[in-house]
Amino acid sequence: MKSPGAKAKRMPRAVREQQMLDAAVRTFGQRGYRAASMDEIAELAGVSKPLVYLYLNSKEELFTACIRREAAALVAAVRDAVEADAAGPGTPADRQLWAGLTAFFTHTAENPDGWAVLHQQARTHGEPFAAEVAAMRAEIAAFVTGLIGEAAREAHQDPAFGDRDVSGLAQALVGAAESLAQWANETPGVSAKEAAATLMNFAWAGLGSLMDGRRWSPSR
Amino acid sequence: MKSPGAKAKRMPRAVREQQMLDAAVRTFGQRGYRAASMDEIAELAGVSKPLVYLYLNSKEELFTACIRREAAALVAAVRDAVEADAAGPGTPADRQLWAGLTAFFTHTAENPDGWAVLHQQARTHGEPFAAEVAAMRAEIAAFVTGLIGEAAREAHQDPAFGDRDVSGLAQALVGAAESLAQWANETPGVSAKEAAATLMNFAWAGLGSLMDGRRWSPSR
Repeated sequence: MKSPGAKAKRMPRAVREQQMLDAAVRTFGQRGYRAASMDEIAELAGVSKPLVYLYLNSKEELFTACIRREAAALVAAVRDAVEADAAGPGTPADRQLWAGLTAFFTHTAENPDGWAVLHQQARTHGEPFAAEVAAMRAEIAAFVTGLIGEAAREAHQDPAFGDRDVSGLAQALVGAAESLAQWANETPGVSAKEAAATLMNFAWAGLGSLMDGRRWSPSR
Repeated sequence: MKSPGAKAKRMPRAVREQQMLDAAVRTFGQRGYRAASMDEIAELAGVSKPLVYLYLNSKEELFTACIRREAAALVAAVRDAVEADAAGPGTPADRQLWAGLTAFFTHTAENPDGWAVLHQQARTHGEPFAAEVAAMRAEIAAFVTGLIGEAAREAHQDPAFGDRDVSGLAQALVGAAESLAQWANETPGVSAKEAAATLMNFAWAGLGSLMDGRRWSPSR
């Protein structure tokens, strides 16, 4: 979304708005919601502060717009990767999960400020921000629930393995992914691939298998 | 910590303070930090509002005291259960993990307001509250890292399975447990035992094994 400064004054509103959001996500993600100033965001976006207010109304609305944009981008990245991977019929569930996790960790690693906005800032400054990110989380959990449920139904007909087990597993997986993404972004040298592999081992092979030295591998 | 109201005026300070904290945890957990009023907390504790301010200074300090008390109780519940279970030498790692998870989910189920304070309220109202709960989380993650690391060293000498893998797995497990505890408290009819079993299946047997109908069981 970055363009040469020389053309700044002729840019259409939509492009300019994205530049403001880029600057805002970076500032909110790195400084935190409270410490971030509208002056700083305007300067980073290369526009005047009144223009930021004209387009986004207030710091609250600007922050809400950041949450929505970053949430939509993250959900789309995961969904697209799983759907691309599952293009052929009968794609095994572990392949689909691996595709989704890899996309999740790649996206959060490539957009650390966006992830900080979603996972830390949006949840630590009350409403209405927490509700925005809770809605995104519910959407991802529902998507993962669908994936695991489909896999479970294909794999076995255990009647004791019901919808509630599937929901619980999806919640566990989403919580594990959130936690690992934060850890990966805070720990120098941990790559997205490594974080995805850690969770895949955890989720698929299971700790028990890991302890016996058996690992899940994407190429098995 | 509840005592008969008749003796309210003769109670020692420590007991009275715990009653205030009981009332505060309940109010903060159910209404949220911002909506909770000091009037309501004082009334629920059966004391005057000035007495609450005399003992705890401010709403911020009262909330911080709630976070600290609930965090310490949760950490102690998990630690004690694991240590009691590991009283004999050579307790298998899966038994210790099961003991810890069962204690975690039992404690969060029995103290839903305390868990709401820690997991939701403390994290959604900025600093210094978020830092308090982050410190507790780091303590639990370090404890789980120790548990998994010990198990890994006992089980196999895979040199590729290093400290970072263990840290990552601990982060995944802690995130999964947090997510499941919230889900269990919000979902009618999900018991602590059920939540612990779901996570144990997820963490130990692994989703892959689950899909084949193989489940981890505490009595195996």
